[in-house]
Amino acid sequence: MKENLLIYISIFLYLNKRTKYMSHNLLKGKKGIIFGALNDMSIAWKVAERAHEEGATFTLTNAPIAMRMGAINDLAEKTNSKVIPADATNVEELKNLFSESQEILGGKVDFVLHSIGMSPNVRKKKKYTGLNYEWYKQTLDVSAMSLHKVLQVASEMDAINEWGSVVALTYIAAQRIFPDYNDMADAKSLLESITRSFGYHYGTSKKVRVNTISQSPTVTTAGSGVTGFDKFIDFSENMSPLGNASSLDCANYCISMFSDLTKYVTMQNLFHDGGFSSTGVTNAVMDRFGE
Amino acid sequence: MKENLLIYISIFLYLNKRTKYMSHNLLKGKKGIIFGALNDMSIAWKVAERAHEEGATFTLTNAPIAMRMGAINDLAEKTNSKVIPADATNVEELKNLFSESQEILGGKVDFVLHSIGMSPNVRKKKKYTGLNYEWYKQTLDVSAMSLHKVLQVASEMDAINEWGSVVALTYIAAQRIFPDYNDMADAKSLLESITRSFGYHYGTSKKVRVNTISQSPTVTTAGSGVTGFDKFIDFSENMSPLGNASSLDCANYCISMFSDLTKYVTMQNLFHDGGFSSTGVTNAVMDRFGE
Amino acid sequence: MKENLLIYISIFLYLNKRTKYMSHNLLKGKKGIIFGALNDMSIAWKVAERAHEEGATFTLTNAPIAMRMGAINDLAEKTNSKVIPADATNVEELKNLFSESQEILGGKVDFVLHSIGMSPNVRKKKKYTGLNYEWYKQTLDVSAMSLHKVLQVASEMDAINEWGSVVALTYIAAQRIFPDYNDMADAKSLLESITRSFGYHYGTSKKVRVNTISQSPTVTTAGSGVTGFDKFIDFSENMSPLGNASSLDCANYCISMFSDLTKYVTMQNLFHDGGFSSTGVTNAVMDRFGE
Amino acid sequence: MKENLLIYISIFLYLNKRTKYMSHNLLKGKKGIIFGALNDMSIAWKVAERAHEEGATFTLTNAPIAMRMGAINDLAEKTNSKVIPADATNVEELKNLFSESQEILGGKVDFVLHSIGMSPNVRKKKKYTGLNYEWYKQTLDVSAMSLHKVLQVASEMDAINEWGSVVALTYIAAQRIFPDYNDMADAKSLLESITRSFGYHYGTSKKVRVNTISQSPTVTTAGSGVTGFDKFIDFSENMSPLGNASSLDCANYCISMFSDLTKYVTMQNLFHDGGFSSTGVTNAVMDRFGE
Repeated sequence: MKENLLIYISIFLYLNKRTKYMSHNLLKGKKGIIFGALNDMSIAWKVAERAHEEGATFTLTNAPIAMRMGAINDLAEKTNSKVIPADATNVEELKNLFSESQEILGGKVDFVLHSIGMSPNVRKKKKYTGLNYEWYKQTLDVSAMSLHKVLQVASEMDAINEWGSVVALTYIAAQRIFPDYNDMADAKSLLESITRSFGYHYGTSKKVRVNTISQSPTVTTAGSGVTGFDKFIDFSENMSPLGNASSLDCANYCISMFSDLTKYVTMQNLFHDGGFSSTGVTNAVMDRFGE
Repeated sequence: MKENLLIYISIFLYLNKRTKYMSHNLLKGKKGIIFGALNDMSIAWKVAERAHEEGATFTLTNAPIAMRMGAINDLAEKTNSKVIPADATNVEELKNLFSESQEILGGKVDFVLHSIGMSPNVRKKKKYTGLNYEWYKQTLDVSAMSLHKVLQVASEMDAINEWGSVVALTYIAAQRIFPDYNDMADAKSLLESITRSFGYHYGTSKKVRVNTISQSPTVTTAGSGVTGFDKFIDFSENMSPLGNASSLDCANYCISMFSDLTKYVTMQNLFHDGGFSSTGVTNAVMDRFGE
Repeated sequence: MKENLLIYISIFLYLNKRTKYMSHNLLKGKKGIIFGALNDMSIAWKVAERAHEEGATFTLTNAPIAMRMGAINDLAEKTNSKVIPADATNVEELKNLFSESQEILGGKVDFVLHSIGMSPNVRKKKKYTGLNYEWYKQTLDVSAMSLHKVLQVASEMDAINEWGSVVALTYIAAQRIFPDYNDMADAKSLLESITRSFGYHYGTSKKVRVNTISQSPTVTTAGSGVTGFDKFIDFSENMSPLGNASSLDCANYCISMFSDLTKYVTMQNLFHDGGFSSTGVTNAVMDRFGE
Repeated sequence: MKENLLIYISIFLYLNKRTKYMSHNLLKGKKGIIFGALNDMSIAWKVAERAHEEGATFTLTNAPIAMRMGAINDLAEKTNSKVIPADATNVEELKNLFSESQEILGGKVDFVLHSIGMSPNVRKKKKYTGLNYEWYKQTLDVSAMSLHKVLQVASEMDAINEWGSVVALTYIAAQRIFPDYNDMADAKSLLESITRSFGYHYGTSKKVRVNTISQSPTVTTAGSGVTGFDKFIDFSENMSPLGNASSLDCANYCISMFSDLTKYVTMQNLFHDGGFSSTGVTNAVMDRFGE
């Protein structure tokens, strides 16, 4: 009896925990496409897990080259979803992605996550004042124009339902300079502009909304290439009244943006950063400045 | 044993059923205080209804003078909540409000909605270039400083739980001038500044977050006093890619901000306006000009 | 004929010489009122000196209480100007100020500098989360509403020429929180809102423009009361690509805003801060964060 | 005699006018490079005229193809300057431009005006939701990346003096959507980001400042290609408390930014728009919305 009781109590606690932390079924019936899940450090990975918990169905996609390194198939299995490789700078592959996704999911999609960024100049340690311009174009194409291509393909195929929601991940370097962020700052500014521009047109014609979430610096495979990134995470933690936001919290915020609770939010850049963006200085940072 | 099993199964089904309930139980277990529900046109009224549906318990409050006109008791009955009159400019009455609320709700609160605004200069048709300064001070006190008082009382009484969420409603007149909005524009700027300032301190000390939602112009009893308001609603509708956001949609957005999905959003002004704030002009508005 | 020619040539040379004068005579013929020159550390003091060099005539004013401490009469002598005491929160005294100024200067004014700020809460070491509300109201009245009063008095008396320019000094705490800046942050937000609001009305009716200049933290008598101000100046210096702007540079910027070179700039907040406002972090600041 | 008198009076008035409107010698001794003067409707043309009046010496440049259409040689003669053709997307041609300019002007330059923009998608009437991506890349390269190239070439050659000032012209479409502005909005966002990014690095290393001026819509040869541009000018005029700013006023503002009066302004986007950017609606626009 005692053993049984313990089992039942643990079932009770487990269920209770579920109802507290997840399974609000906020995305029940919604269909989506998630770009950029590389491994379990990726924000997109967390978004996929949380969207699954909230009742959504979706396809996963990433660049063929990124998929070789990643563990995306584990995620697909876990979330009961299909993987469709696509280079987000390639219009034909995007068309195929939307076409296959609609077939698999049984109709138009309701949400899209764009979590794509890459700078050859950063990777190859070029300074911002000594950029390689071919690489700069690649940075812009992969990290920003890809969003335009996703949206243009979707709107031409009429592949997103009314009140659908598109979210792209960005960083505050689009507004203020962080020297090591390099040409990614320009790419993020361009990304946010595309968000507004396409958000206008897609909102007017089909009530599809487009927003960016500007997330705290996050330890991911992408971030980890940047010089002095640990020190920077530390600075950001000290400069944010609530501390840096985690990937999981970012995923939760994405879920809210995909849900029907935020239907009239569009063409916005939304800071999810523990207050960093509205903070000039904290006492914690001032303490680093001597007598 | 069998009996026990049945009990456990019924617990299981009960918990499971709750998670699939039409409302998402996003605020299950959360306690709150809602300021400013005057009648069923009020945004605060919709927030109360939606918070109730999402599983929250809360108290309702309004200025004693506002309550004479209102139908707040109907709302209280409908949402199974108590009404506690309080003048939001009066620190003693706010202390009483927080003290009684905690007693009624059985602990600290998790969310607060501030939906308070009033300008004697607007009511009495004073122009912005000919303000009565006593009334101007009243506008600021009622519409903005009241938020500081609410937060100062709450923090001194330690009345809000960690990760609690405070939302105040504002309007884009804080950033751009709409001539008839008069001294309310200044009050909203002050309100947004208080949001950032107190958000810093309350975030750092207790992880409480504070934000404003900048809502489309909304037909409420408050709004209806403004000159030419109907024409203005029409302009705003034409200038917003998704159209003006309704009170109900605004309430939904408030729910998302009170939920655990948005834990790292603080010190922000969040536009809930169908894209108005990021739109320079629309084709619909251009059609009113020339050939 | 020859005589005539000599006269004309001398007129020519006279005019030509003036244009080559060390100071650029940018404000030649312009009349103004300068608020807030306390001593030679004040920005307003530098503005008066520079405006004088640039050919302007003006009156100086300050609160009677501030003048007891100050050395404003030395400045008046140096710049050949009159001092008219006025409490900027007192409408009657402002009316007298504008009336006397017009009499002394021989006509309407072309520029006004508002450099006024004071917080009893800061002086008496109240924390932002424990404000004295009577003092808070005083902070807002002295530091922000005073600008509205200046403008309302001026517009009711029609005391500013078309294309006249009003500048008020502010600080970036209006946008981002600096914990020790306390309720002055809210006052500056209000000040910037009044700038936009009144700028709209005064621009529409009389083509008068109104702007704020958001200056680097500056060692003045006003600034020196703030806790840890030296450390803060150091932080700001390290966080600004060009370093902190000096009072003299700020005065130069004010001159440009009073001149005819900036006629279509209105309702703006202009950062004069060595790039601080657009900087997320510098290498100099990152160096304070460990390995 | 009477005739002579009239002549002399007219000389007097002419000189007087000169001292009032110009010839403050604000840029005496300064050297510069001006991009983008096509004909006398160009803002760059006015900047050249005004810079000449203010005592600067400079070279003029434009793309070889643009120069065939233009009348740039007239301007060169009038301002006593040399023309050096250069395609601003071509690093080698920019190197030659800076090298020749320094030779002609006798040293490093103090100011640069970037007034370059072109979109094949706009010209060829592609919609923003149906862009040709090769043309999109061209829009970005010509209208935005060209600024990076100018700055990278200048900094690698150390061709700009300390406290030198670089100004690029932009438009508020970078912040808010104007549907016909198409992909130029994205280009302007990128341009403004480059301004901040390079401004950080060039400010830190050499105290060179970089800013954008966001100008009212202006009737130029460039603007005149846009659909419905006259209607749009009319809308903007009605939406600006001071009306639209002219090319000449914009040139004056550029002069102030090149002068030593604005030394600590960097990494900023400066609205020169008669208040448009801070205006939500005007009574003049509301009058277009019926009863």
